[in-house]
Amino acid sequence: MVDEDLISREEAVARIDPGQLDQLLHPRIDPNAEVEAAARGLNASPGAASGKIVLDADTAEERGKAGEDVILVRWETTPDDIHGLIEAKGILTAHGGMTSHAAVVARGMGKPCVAGCEGLSIDLDKRTIAIGGEKLSEGDVLTIDGGSGKVIVGPVDLVPPQINEDFETILGWADELRRLKVRANADTPEDAAKAREFGAQGIGLCRTEHMFMAENRLPVMREMIMASGEEERRAALDRLLPHQQEDFEGIFEAMAGLPVTIRLLDPPLHEFLPPPDEAKDERMRERIRSLQESNPMLGTRGCRLGLLWPEIYEMQVRAIVRAAAAVEERTGEAPLVEIMHPLVGFAEELHRLRSMTVATANEEREIEYLVGTMIELPRACIRADEIAEYADFFSFGTNDLTQTTLGFSRDDAEGKFLTRYLEDGVLERNPFETLDQSGVGDLMRIAVDRGRSAKPDIKVGICGEHGGEPDSVAFCHRLGLDYVSCSPYRVPLARLAAAQAALAERGVEAVAAGG
Amino acid sequence: MVDEDLISREEAVARIDPGQLDQLLHPRIDPNAEVEAAARGLNASPGAASGKIVLDADTAEERGKAGEDVILVRWETTPDDIHGLIEAKGILTAHGGMTSHAAVVARGMGKPCVAGCEGLSIDLDKRTIAIGGEKLSEGDVLTIDGGSGKVIVGPVDLVPPQINEDFETILGWADELRRLKVRANADTPEDAAKAREFGAQGIGLCRTEHMFMAENRLPVMREMIMASGEEERRAALDRLLPHQQEDFEGIFEAMAGLPVTIRLLDPPLHEFLPPPDEAKDERMRERIRSLQESNPMLGTRGCRLGLLWPEIYEMQVRAIVRAAAAVEERTGEAPLVEIMHPLVGFAEELHRLRSMTVATANEEREIEYLVGTMIELPRACIRADEIAEYADFFSFGTNDLTQTTLGFSRDDAEGKFLTRYLEDGVLERNPFETLDQSGVGDLMRIAVDRGRSAKPDIKVGICGEHGGEPDSVAFCHRLGLDYVSCSPYRVPLARLAAAQAALAERGVEAVAAGG
Repeated sequence: MVDEDLISREEAVARIDPGQLDQLLHPRIDPNAEVEAAARGLNASPGAASGKIVLDADTAEERGKAGEDVILVRWETTPDDIHGLIEAKGILTAHGGMTSHAAVVARGMGKPCVAGCEGLSIDLDKRTIAIGGEKLSEGDVLTIDGGSGKVIVGPVDLVPPQINEDFETILGWADELRRLKVRANADTPEDAAKAREFGAQGIGLCRTEHMFMAENRLPVMREMIMASGEEERRAALDRLLPHQQEDFEGIFEAMAGLPVTIRLLDPPLHEFLPPPDEAKDERMRERIRSLQESNPMLGTRGCRLGLLWPEIYEMQVRAIVRAAAAVEERTGEAPLVEIMHPLVGFAEELHRLRSMTVATANEEREIEYLVGTMIELPRACIRADEIAEYADFFSFGTNDLTQTTLGFSRDDAEGKFLTRYLEDGVLERNPFETLDQSGVGDLMRIAVDRGRSAKPDIKVGICGEHGGEPDSVAFCHRLGLDYVSCSPYRVPLARLAAAQAALAERGVEAVAAGG
Repeated sequence: MVDEDLISREEAVARIDPGQLDQLLHPRIDPNAEVEAAARGLNASPGAASGKIVLDADTAEERGKAGEDVILVRWETTPDDIHGLIEAKGILTAHGGMTSHAAVVARGMGKPCVAGCEGLSIDLDKRTIAIGGEKLSEGDVLTIDGGSGKVIVGPVDLVPPQINEDFETILGWADELRRLKVRANADTPEDAAKAREFGAQGIGLCRTEHMFMAENRLPVMREMIMASGEEERRAALDRLLPHQQEDFEGIFEAMAGLPVTIRLLDPPLHEFLPPPDEAKDERMRERIRSLQESNPMLGTRGCRLGLLWPEIYEMQVRAIVRAAAAVEERTGEAPLVEIMHPLVGFAEELHRLRSMTVATANEEREIEYLVGTMIELPRACIRADEIAEYADFFSFGTNDLTQTTLGFSRDDAEGKFLTRYLEDGVLERNPFETLDQSGVGDLMRIAVDRGRSAKPDIKVGICGEHGGEPDSVAFCHRLGLDYVSCSPYRVPLARLAAAQAALAERGVEAVAAGG
């Protein structure tokens, strides 16, 4: 229609529904197919997939590599299942919420996932499952729709993702219209490359914990945690350093010319240890017990790790600096490095961590980098003025900020009281899917105001999952943020939503007009 | 000195150190005694006590009732130990923080407690303990100092509390000078009477959960939780109602003429069930599992219980209304009833709960009462304007508000990263002991501003433990709150601190002047 001069480019961009666009980016069930769901779970990662049921990661890997389409069906997944997750076309779990391991990993991989499917039971001895009353064996075909949470017995016709030239043209127009930059959350060189392909203008969140979960590194990570003193801990960290450096080099190369924000270690250390009954000896059991927490979400994690055991963050800073120097030497181009400290609540925390970062980097090669912090605690929003003194940038972690501001543990809310709240109309929308603008959003506004009052040119972005949700992107635009960051697969959607937000500001209303 | 016209009453009040006053209200170790601590734990509840070691609650009850001074020594305590806690002179635990069962109960009883004493190990088979290397048997004498966390082997000379006439006179002057009202947190008629004796002007927080923990009620509470449907749940609640009503009648009578704020059920239901391995059958084990939460602090608790299972709060409202009507009939004086809904984050929650409260009360007798809410989530502070529409009063729950605003789970922070933060100087003071004025306090300021902008005459108080800490009381005065509420034993201290805050406003500086 634009070619035919019927509507302007602006109108063309404004008329596209970002929600539909998200569907277009993934395979989906043929709208003409007649399907009946045997059960339903959480729509944990969009897209649809059909494949043979496999009940463990080893089988998934084996059959997947042999070219079979398989759906990995588990009670829940753990980091030990990663090789199976990689080879599966889709993931179905009986247990866990939107932030369960399966859900998070699947979204990161852009792979369909239905999680927490209560109608599913698994009999590992008999190698069978029961789903909504039907009994199936390993090898039988199942279809999952991660966009709706539906699980269907048997194969279903799927429609492939429809990324075509027209689509690219319109996104190009969107890029001209938007003010917000769009980055991606990516932890590996592969994800970084994919993000770039989708048009990401940098990495807004590179988590470093998944790097420690890999099969060959986890044992060293556990040694580090089990160490009886700083010296032993440093010895284990020294062995982890080259791996981290290698990861960072790959990511920097994939993102040449674009900024990369690396978040230092965030999760509580007990997440790296096995459950107590799988501990290899009494000493490990004792350590697991001593690290157990009543509310791990509010425990010894984030920058608290870096302040209690500085050698962990020091190792990570060294790996970053060495990787940046190596890449610059190899390619002639210096990576744009941003080092991010998580879960800061007090300016004094960042003051000390910034000093540690600078001192450690100075011991290594001379490179340029920024030091900043996540803003993911209400206190960080309230005292953003003090924190800004030590920060080159802020990145809102709206997942954790939503959890603390609302007092909602996402794992305990979804499928439980939050689901009831949505059913009963106490809440209109899930605050983990779309930003709670009048609550969490108002705290963000306070943080932006106070942060910029202390440091007018501070760079401010968002790297929670909200960064890829259209209404939240529009809110971030109105708040005057510099960028949003979301999963690679949502980057096109965020580009479009950012353009629509800019247009809305000029009075061009999105979607409403109709086709 | 005032009698001798040397100083004014104002100066007399200003010169007393509230910290010392707190010591005076409890027995303490004779300052002239030479003592050596065998170990140290958390100073969980002030005061000192000497007594014979007993290792279980039954023995403590038996020997205590026989007139012996006993110290109950446990790994940790549970509601099942309550009969032993009542008879013990002091409590010592190896495990748990400042909010552990032992610590909270001891503070409520005004009884010394040292909690989380890592140098303590207990051998229940041999009926011995080891403390800092020394081995002791049940019946040997131990002294604990809950003000310092010291544990001393053998008896030590103690100095009794020094509440005398001079002290009463000065507190009387303080009452004339202060603007802030002082209430107490009390859950039983006995505590209410004690609070009144100490000069409390009402109850700011009457928790209703302890009432369900009593030996004869817990089984019914468990039936309620295990119920397979609403009807069965209501049947169990009907049996709990008369008990609740009886408790409330006692409290209303003890507080005749003064306001009583009753908080409806707050903790997650799993707190009323035994640990999974003590479940009496598979069904209970299943229920315990289904109620388990990753972060119970941020889970299905507070008003979420009242919205998910309205019959629970309905029963409580009925019990309150019936108790108030019965007491009015008996005494001719109507109790001043305030019904408080916990953990509200969204105005819509309180909107519905207020309607439920009014509808339920209307089905019972006609009485006067207020409906209000705790302000204990950052979101409640931010949207206090919307929430005020449905609230006659606000009461800041600064313990939970500190946990969510700072992202600190108290149970996981104290003895762990928070202790390190204090040792290393990242934080100067423990935010659970004294209010974090620039963080949590600033959110409170926002809440007061916004709440009063919507409803200028809304009554605002604080019922967290900070309500009895002098610096926090002074902050509450400056914030323009109407009252503070603290444990009965801290009421005199709060009265003094409130007067000193009023004096400081007039330029009369506290303490600094010296004796």
